[in-house]
Amino acid sequence: MAAARHGVPAVIIMPSDSPALKIANTKALGAEVVTYDRLRDSREEIGARLANERGLTLVKPYDEPLVVAGQGTAGLEIVEQAMAEGVEKADVLIPCGGGGLTAGISITLEGTGLRARPCEPEGFDDATRSLASGKHEVNATQGGSICDAIVTNSPGEITFPIMLKNCGSGLVVSDEEAMRAVALAYQRLKIVLEPGGAVALAAALFHGDEIEGDAVIVVATGGNVDADVFVRCLKTL
Amino acid sequence: MAAARHGVPAVIIMPSDSPALKIANTKALGAEVVTYDRLRDSREEIGARLANERGLTLVKPYDEPLVVAGQGTAGLEIVEQAMAEGVEKADVLIPCGGGGLTAGISITLEGTGLRARPCEPEGFDDATRSLASGKHEVNATQGGSICDAIVTNSPGEITFPIMLKNCGSGLVVSDEEAMRAVALAYQRLKIVLEPGGAVALAAALFHGDEIEGDAVIVVATGGNVDADVFVRCLKTL
Repeated sequence: MAAARHGVPAVIIMPSDSPALKIANTKALGAEVVTYDRLRDSREEIGARLANERGLTLVKPYDEPLVVAGQGTAGLEIVEQAMAEGVEKADVLIPCGGGGLTAGISITLEGTGLRARPCEPEGFDDATRSLASGKHEVNATQGGSICDAIVTNSPGEITFPIMLKNCGSGLVVSDEEAMRAVALAYQRLKIVLEPGGAVALAAALFHGDEIEGDAVIVVATGGNVDADVFVRCLKTL
Repeated sequence: MAAARHGVPAVIIMPSDSPALKIANTKALGAEVVTYDRLRDSREEIGARLANERGLTLVKPYDEPLVVAGQGTAGLEIVEQAMAEGVEKADVLIPCGGGGLTAGISITLEGTGLRARPCEPEGFDDATRSLASGKHEVNATQGGSICDAIVTNSPGEITFPIMLKNCGSGLVVSDEEAMRAVALAYQRLKIVLEPGGAVALAAALFHGDEIEGDAVIVVATGGNVDADVFVRCLKTL
């Protein structure tokens, strides 16, 4: 959408197991979509090759200062709204893949009583384990989660030091909990979330004992979910 | 919710064919729900009787000046946003049952280049026909539409004169079009709409030739839709 507004071509590299809806919506916005196999291909190599061959500027999904800054603007809204509501101390739960959104928001929370906490699906809790150990941990597998959008191998080179400095510990939810959060967002909030975008809501709903502060702040991100997956989520109601 | 905030009891009278989700959400907010049969019972009589027996204040769903005024605040937001976007002349499409929302918004549009137009499902187009004839028309049947929330017998006593003065002609959509609008709102807007709340979006999507102005403004209302109906809507994709 940003490229379309600026009248420049966009090539988006996406895992081949991305929701068909996400691929279709991206193409509908005018972008070319190049898919790759999560388990066999390196998207970094594909991106570097395409950028080189076609003279394109590579924009990484999270390990890019301007992406971190841009996603961090969500944190500015959170701080503003928390202050308006009189919330002084709260955990801010954030769906975390490579950590762009989490790192960006965490910067905006510095000096407030709010604290960023990354949320991840079971089996893909690289950020949670990396924050605990203080070094880059990697996941055992690269795919197969229903939370496809936030499955990354390890926190980013740029994002991890920021997260290590600013974030509280990570929260890990099961696929079942993420699916129930999707269903409850449908039922009560009337918004469409994809499972990966609902992991922070799932942490708030089902892991309350791990959360501190006088309010819980949840970031809900992404509604690219194919109808069959959404229907499976609704069946958890 | 309003009653809960003011610490007073609430009794809500709802058709027995209301979505189970709507009844459950209403109860979860602390209200008592009394159901009635659309085809056999008169909700006006039930309301009057309950108000009398229990000493309650009756708040009608649309034929109530404060309800019309309250729903009209949506129109204030529409005018503000349209001015910010530089929209000077546009039809404002509004899902219409008894006409509270339509009448309220139409008042706020007076003196602007915006015009309110009620949208209804086929078979329950009492407002459209009443606006055309200039007198209260009634529907042939009282129930059986997938757009349950906006099925009323005839425009209200208070709302119809306001609509007659302010509104453009009505727009009528099929159940199939309403269901496709629900699915497209899910797919592209990431919001959960009930079929009745999606009739204005359906009119914008499928009846563009009946709409005037340099922009189309759509009011989307209500997301109380049971999962089985929502799944049926998604199948239209």
